[in-house]
Amino acid sequence: MALKKIRKENYPEWYQAVVAEADMAENSSSPGCMVIKPWGYGIWERIRDVFDEKIKSTDHENCYFPMFIPLSFFQKEAEHVDGFAKEMAVVTHSRLSMKDGKLVPDSKLEEPLIVRPTSEAIIADSFSKWVKSYRDLPVLVNQWANVVRWEMRPRLFLRTREFLWQEGHTAHSSSEEAEEETTRMLEAYRDLCENTLAMPVLTGRKPEHEKFPGAVDTYCVEAMMQDGKALQAGTSHFLGQNFAKSANISFVNKQNQQEFAYTTSWGVSTRLIGGVIMTHADDEGMVVPPKIAPYQVVIVPVVKNTTDEDAVMDYIAQIRTELAKQMPFGEKIRVKLDKRDKASVDKFWEWTRKGAPIILEIGKRDADGNNVMLKERIKLGTPEGKLILSREEMIAGISSRLENIQKAMFDKANSRLHSNIRTDISTVEEFAAYFGQSNEWIEDGKQAKVAFVRGKWCADPQSEELLKAMKITIRCIPFDQSNTQGVCLLTGKPATMDVIYARSY
Amino acid sequence: MALKKIRKENYPEWYQAVVAEADMAENSSSPGCMVIKPWGYGIWERIRDVFDEKIKSTDHENCYFPMFIPLSFFQKEAEHVDGFAKEMAVVTHSRLSMKDGKLVPDSKLEEPLIVRPTSEAIIADSFSKWVKSYRDLPVLVNQWANVVRWEMRPRLFLRTREFLWQEGHTAHSSSEEAEEETTRMLEAYRDLCENTLAMPVLTGRKPEHEKFPGAVDTYCVEAMMQDGKALQAGTSHFLGQNFAKSANISFVNKQNQQEFAYTTSWGVSTRLIGGVIMTHADDEGMVVPPKIAPYQVVIVPVVKNTTDEDAVMDYIAQIRTELAKQMPFGEKIRVKLDKRDKASVDKFWEWTRKGAPIILEIGKRDADGNNVMLKERIKLGTPEGKLILSREEMIAGISSRLENIQKAMFDKANSRLHSNIRTDISTVEEFAAYFGQSNEWIEDGKQAKVAFVRGKWCADPQSEELLKAMKITIRCIPFDQSNTQGVCLLTGKPATMDVIYARSY
Repeated sequence: MALKKIRKENYPEWYQAVVAEADMAENSSSPGCMVIKPWGYGIWERIRDVFDEKIKSTDHENCYFPMFIPLSFFQKEAEHVDGFAKEMAVVTHSRLSMKDGKLVPDSKLEEPLIVRPTSEAIIADSFSKWVKSYRDLPVLVNQWANVVRWEMRPRLFLRTREFLWQEGHTAHSSSEEAEEETTRMLEAYRDLCENTLAMPVLTGRKPEHEKFPGAVDTYCVEAMMQDGKALQAGTSHFLGQNFAKSANISFVNKQNQQEFAYTTSWGVSTRLIGGVIMTHADDEGMVVPPKIAPYQVVIVPVVKNTTDEDAVMDYIAQIRTELAKQMPFGEKIRVKLDKRDKASVDKFWEWTRKGAPIILEIGKRDADGNNVMLKERIKLGTPEGKLILSREEMIAGISSRLENIQKAMFDKANSRLHSNIRTDISTVEEFAAYFGQSNEWIEDGKQAKVAFVRGKWCADPQSEELLKAMKITIRCIPFDQSNTQGVCLLTGKPATMDVIYARSY
Repeated sequence: MALKKIRKENYPEWYQAVVAEADMAENSSSPGCMVIKPWGYGIWERIRDVFDEKIKSTDHENCYFPMFIPLSFFQKEAEHVDGFAKEMAVVTHSRLSMKDGKLVPDSKLEEPLIVRPTSEAIIADSFSKWVKSYRDLPVLVNQWANVVRWEMRPRLFLRTREFLWQEGHTAHSSSEEAEEETTRMLEAYRDLCENTLAMPVLTGRKPEHEKFPGAVDTYCVEAMMQDGKALQAGTSHFLGQNFAKSANISFVNKQNQQEFAYTTSWGVSTRLIGGVIMTHADDEGMVVPPKIAPYQVVIVPVVKNTTDEDAVMDYIAQIRTELAKQMPFGEKIRVKLDKRDKASVDKFWEWTRKGAPIILEIGKRDADGNNVMLKERIKLGTPEGKLILSREEMIAGISSRLENIQKAMFDKANSRLHSNIRTDISTVEEFAAYFGQSNEWIEDGKQAKVAFVRGKWCADPQSEELLKAMKITIRCIPFDQSNTQGVCLLTGKPATMDVIYARSY
């Protein structure tokens, strides 16, 4: 049963429908901010737990820094404030008072406070106190926090004024070590996207004009959505000595000389959930990769009358006990028994819309026959996707079934990504004609009308103007630059590198 | 080796010294806000994980609601806004602009936004959209979030402008069910404090004038600090229909009538860490209960020269493998090998200051003799607390050792609490004389000069004035009210109940 809006009809409305029908999030009465509902938040918790383990296993420690940053801190790094000044929530008062029957802000602050859009400014201040000698380095910290950027066109998960993220911040005694850290965490993001979210990505460096404000280099993971647009899924910044100089993070090195530290920062946010939706969801709703599904298996009892109920529930209890011993991906399986007082068919569709990887429908006939009816959210070879299995067969196969689903989801998205990077566009006319078309849903196994272009670039300001006019961006400069000879497809000037061009979220 | 300030000399300065020397948190450059450092945050993560499991096992689901609450939402519940208006951070602008070379707030918002001091107002708004019929009830949600209350006298962990907490919010179809929920979560807090933090508490109801603004009833857990002052460790509120009426959370009941829902809310915060410090820390620094210690066992290698190093590190590797199989409290043990390039004696004192429950010092002699030197942070019977054990003996005993430490910490604090509740004060003169003394550190096993008083109360406004003048508060009305006959010890009027009086944090 399809959603009210399907992908080929109206992709943006389909996206909204998926989020709404899966009950993952909704707009709130707080302008531009969302409420993340249990199913959406459950997915975020899984992402957080997986990545938190990675953060810790790479020797980072979690901390928590203040959400409020004194305005003057932003005056220290000119590029940084330029990048964020237009979208900052500013706290100016510390109380409300009643005036003429109305509540109004009162007690004006001496110095306004900015609600963190990102925490380099305030964390650099702490680092400057912590770091005195090369012995204090490296400092490797991370925080899970909310941040605020005043988006004017908010969209659930993709762009909300407040969002949740992790931000890693590190300081090092050498440029090389800091650059290694930047690369290590980029690779951690690639691994997270591909092996946990089943969302393939391209990795590379951002061009100068797309860098994080204040960074020397920004590296990124870029995913392709089902409409051929790019989504920046995570970034890792090498900040050089920029923030160290503005906040005075300096140390005495082994040669007994005073030197500024080298810092990095890196982050991924709840935006990843938007990426997961646009990578995997279909016309029936959400599809959650098993590794991040709050529930991997949902059991829907089918009880026609009270006489049957005991037998069915006893049989289900037995199945749950056996399921609980299974370890897909080497972890405890997550099983939900949906006992709500609701028709089983409604429950079935609800969990389909939510994208639970496997639904088991179990009724009296199944209990009598020692069977279960199993439905995989994505169809792996079986046209209808509903299977009747013996209990033993179902239990024995559940882990590999979940693992196969995870793999199949990645493979499908990966083939979509890699078969939709055009490399045969070499003139601005071809480029303009290609991107003159609008992005449309890429049907499974078909070629995209518009997606990514890999082509030559000269890095000349003139080319940036052209891109701006066409609303096309350079997503990244891929690490593999096998053949950089040739001319820029935008300007015809000598090219210095290959880049990925795309329309983006 | 004692801290610079010890408890009996200057209790408040000792507290600051513990936090600083254990490197748990520090004041930040953001006024009134703290930086929670890895050791402090690690303790918070353990508390969060333990309580999150409880939240989920009692059928609550985690969500995330906006941090910004439109000002007008506070106009709906008069008592609620009265309670918080004086300490609210107000966002009034959404960008910064450069004016005369200075960054200034720009783009004034049409409606100011309040940074949540607590989320009843914004969550009630969501509930009003979610709840239509009795079938939609109960709604049982929780969020882990940061909140802001504009404290004028901030103290690390105890009172900071921004702090971290969990806030549970629920809506029910009957008053009885909501009251049950309130009690259930109060009991969950008691369990958390006593069985996880080893911090004994008294439970009860708050008097009318100490209730949460907007609540019908506030229940609380109150702990006794080592200076005899009370610390409110957690609260659970029965909100009746107050917020339901102001936000219009109404539903069609089984009798097909429109009715307002009954709501509750409950929370504990990073303040708990302040409570843990003042319950357990001693003159040598922090003492962390094993259940919430980021590392339960810390291994400090003692290596005198590089020849020894391999042998010692091999021996330690073997010990770590064996330790990893131990399951204190039925969970994976948390072991840290401190490999830093630092003198072992400095490491030893650092982990002592941090309050790691068990330190193992392992050198060449231990490796040769198949021994370890074990130090328990709190001394359980062994005067010096340093033991030499065979490797096998240490491994076999490590779980019960940690469990015994946890139990001993609770028992000690519990006996301190229960032996320092005076019940023999019956006149205002005695009361004034008792509380005329200042709070002092309660030496182990000794009687407090000032701590708690359990006595009669009349609930008359006159008594509240008296208490206010003396800066004494009623901490709670205990649930056990065996003998309520008699006269109020403050006013001499007929008493209606027993209450707990104390000075508090």
